Amino acid sequence: MPAPIDFYFDFSSPYGYLASEQIDALAARHGRDVVWRPILLGVVFQQTGGQPLLNIPLKGGYARHDLARSARLLGLPFQLPSTFPFLSVAACRAYYWLHDQDPAGAVALAKALFREAFGTGGDIDSGEAVLRIAESAGVGVGGAGGAGEMAAALNDPAVKQRLRDEVSQAISKGVFGSPLFVVDGEPFWGHDRLDQVDLWLQRGGW
Amino acid sequence: MPAPIDFYFDFSSPYGYLASEQIDALAARHGRDVVWRPILLGVVFQQTGGQPLLNIPLKGGYARHDLARSARLLGLPFQLPSTFPFLSVAACRAYYWLHDQDPAGAVALAKALFREAFGTGGDIDSGEAVLRIAESAGVGVGGAGGAGEMAAALNDPAVKQRLRDEVSQAISKGVFGSPLFVVDGEPFWGHDRLDQVDLWLQRGGW
Repeated sequence: MPAPIDFYFDFSSPYGYLASEQIDALAARHGRDVVWRPILLGVVFQQTGGQPLLNIPLKGGYARHDLARSARLLGLPFQLPSTFPFLSVAACRAYYWLHDQDPAGAVALAKALFREAFGTGGDIDSGEAVLRIAESAGVGVGGAGGAGEMAAALNDPAVKQRLRDEVSQAISKGVFGSPLFVVDGEPFWGHDRLDQVDLWLQRGGW
Repeated sequence: MPAPIDFYFDFSSPYGYLASEQIDALAARHGRDVVWRPILLGVVFQQTGGQPLLNIPLKGGYARHDLARSARLLGLPFQLPSTFPFLSVAACRAYYWLHDQDPAGAVALAKALFREAFGTGGDIDSGEAVLRIAESAGVGVGGAGGAGEMAAALNDPAVKQRLRDEVSQAISKGVFGSPLFVVDGEPFWGHDRLDQVDLWLQRGGW
C-alpha cells in the first residue's frame, strides 16, 4: 500500500479551500489516501516573518482577483468571509478531536468548514460556528454526548496540546504555507502545484 | 491583430528565467506577440514590503528545491549564480537601449542573460558581464560603434531615466512580482500560472 499524501492547510487559507475540493479525487486516481493536517499559519509566520497574503500591498489585491478567477475555472463558489484572515483554532481543535474517533467524519467536517468559510463567506472562527457547521454536516455530534461533547473538546487541555503538537511537528518538517502537500517525502507548496503533485504521482518523480 | 502579452520580469528572478524559456512559444500558439518588460523588483519591494523569495526562512529552502525540480520537469538546465539575488540594473538598461533599435535583438539578449544567470549560474550583475554576454550572443554590438556603444548606453542619463520610467509604469499598473503576465488586461502572477495564461488565451477568458 503506497504512503498517503500529507495535506497541510490552515482553515483560514482560501487557496487551501480550493485544494480541499480537489486533493481527495486527485489522490484517489493514483490509489492514494490523504491525511488532512490543519495547522495554524499564524504560528508558522512567527518563525518565518510571513504575513497573510491578502494584507500585502498590491499582492493582496491580485490574490483576491486570482482566487475568484481560479474558483470560476474550477466551477467552485467563492466568497471571502467578512472577518478575514480569521483564527482557525476552534476549527483545528474540532478536527483533531474528531479525527481520533472518526477520521472520515473529520475530513467531512473540514470540507464543510472550508465551504462555509469560502464557498458562502460565512464566519467559522468561533466555537459556536464550528459546532453549528458540525451539526449541519451531521458529523462529530452523533455520540451519546451529542454536540456537547465537541463543545467540551474545544476547551479540553489535551485537545489544545494536540493541536500545538501538530503545528510544531509541521514546522519541524518544513511546512511554511498553505496548502502544502508532501508526497513520498517530496513537498509541494501551493494550490497551483497540484498539477505537479499529479505528475509526480503518475511518474513516481522525475 | 490581437494585443501582445506583457511579460514583466526581473533578470534576478529564477522563476522569470523558467518563464522566459516558455512564454514566446506559448504566445505563438495563440497568434500573440510578447512584449518583454524587465523591471527592478527591489524598487517594487520598497513599496510592497516584499523581500527576495530565497532569503525567507523555510520558504527560501523550499523555493530552491522547487526551482530545480521545475527546471528538471521542463528539461532546462538550472543553477543559481554565486551572487544571488543580484542587481539587474545593467541588464535592464542594456535591454531597453537595444529594444529601441532592435526589439528582436533585445529579446535575444534577455534570453542569453537569463541563460547565463540561471542556466549556467554565471554572474550578470556588472556592465562588463552584460557586454560580454551581448558579444557572445551577437546582439547589440553590431553597430558602427561596436560594444562601445552599448557600454556608453549603460551610463547614459536618458537610458537610466528610461528604466526608471518603465519600473514606475509597471508599479502603477499593479506589477508586484516576477514573472507577471498581462493578457488583454488580465494579470497572471507566477511561472505556475502559465497554464492559466494558456487557457485564458484559448478560451478568451472564463
